[in-house]
Amino acid sequence: MKLEGWYVTGIVEGEGSFSVSFNLRRKFAVGIETRPSFSLSLNKRNLELIKALREFFGCGGIRYSKSDGTYKFEVRSIKDLREKIIPHFKKFPLQGEKRRDFEIFEKICDMVAKNLHLSRKFLPEIIELAYKMNPSGKRKYPKEKLLRLLAR
Amino acid sequence: MKLEGWYVTGIVEGEGSFSVSFNLRRKFAVGIETRPSFSLSLNKRNLELIKALREFFGCGGIRYSKSDGTYKFEVRSIKDLREKIIPHFKKFPLQGEKRRDFEIFEKICDMVAKNLHLSRKFLPEIIELAYKMNPSGKRKYPKEKLLRLLAR
Repeated sequence: MKLEGWYVTGIVEGEGSFSVSFNLRRKFAVGIETRPSFSLSLNKRNLELIKALREFFGCGGIRYSKSDGTYKFEVRSIKDLREKIIPHFKKFPLQGEKRRDFEIFEKICDMVAKNLHLSRKFLPEIIELAYKMNPSGKRKYPKEKLLRLLAR
Repeated sequence: MKLEGWYVTGIVEGEGSFSVSFNLRRKFAVGIETRPSFSLSLNKRNLELIKALREFFGCGGIRYSKSDGTYKFEVRSIKDLREKIIPHFKKFPLQGEKRRDFEIFEKICDMVAKNLHLSRKFLPEIIELAYKMNPSGKRKYPKEKLLRLLAR
């Protein structure tokens, strides 16, 4: 199965997700891990299509979620996100509201590549940006909790 | 907003639906109304994209669903389905499991265009085909109930 660029953007428009999550981690000096991720989940009947998407992007991994019977293709490597995922969506742009998420995502990935997520000075800006994405998504921590941790 | 053919197929792969539903109607001689439908629902933030899809296909209507905050683009006219919707997916084919639904849908639309859904002889075949689509979807009536009605 060989996928077309615009087809891939179309399926991502509906089913894909650009997100940046945060975890509390003592091993990081700032106490917070920043994790950008591009993912797409499809019903298990569509495993072949998920494999073709990984083939198309040439990066990322696939894992099965037993709870909802889906396969998830996910890219977390900041290098792959910046060199393979983001350039695709510059060439074949999202047409709907997800484009706004993508633009914030790109900005955050640029900041992470410069290691600004490891800085108490710049991490609050990354958090503010991240919480503007996926308005309907669920968050592990309220934004205020993360910002309060950094202000200490 | 001007959409590309492959993009449209991509978004339909994830969010679109080909379905054939049945209603009990005394005004029909066979007692059952057959209703093929192509539809795609998106969150209300994506109204512009839904409008662009209607523009792209040059047919169908848009309606708002208050219960889930989505806009649904839907095409029910058998003429539009056969002359506008189906030809698009022949030119830009679905790549995943939805292709199977599409192929059954096309077959049923051809039968409906020949008025076979108004015949007690052929309607059972249409029902059998329709119930092979969208395995995860909910049905108003069990298949057996419809077939039993026609056998009387």
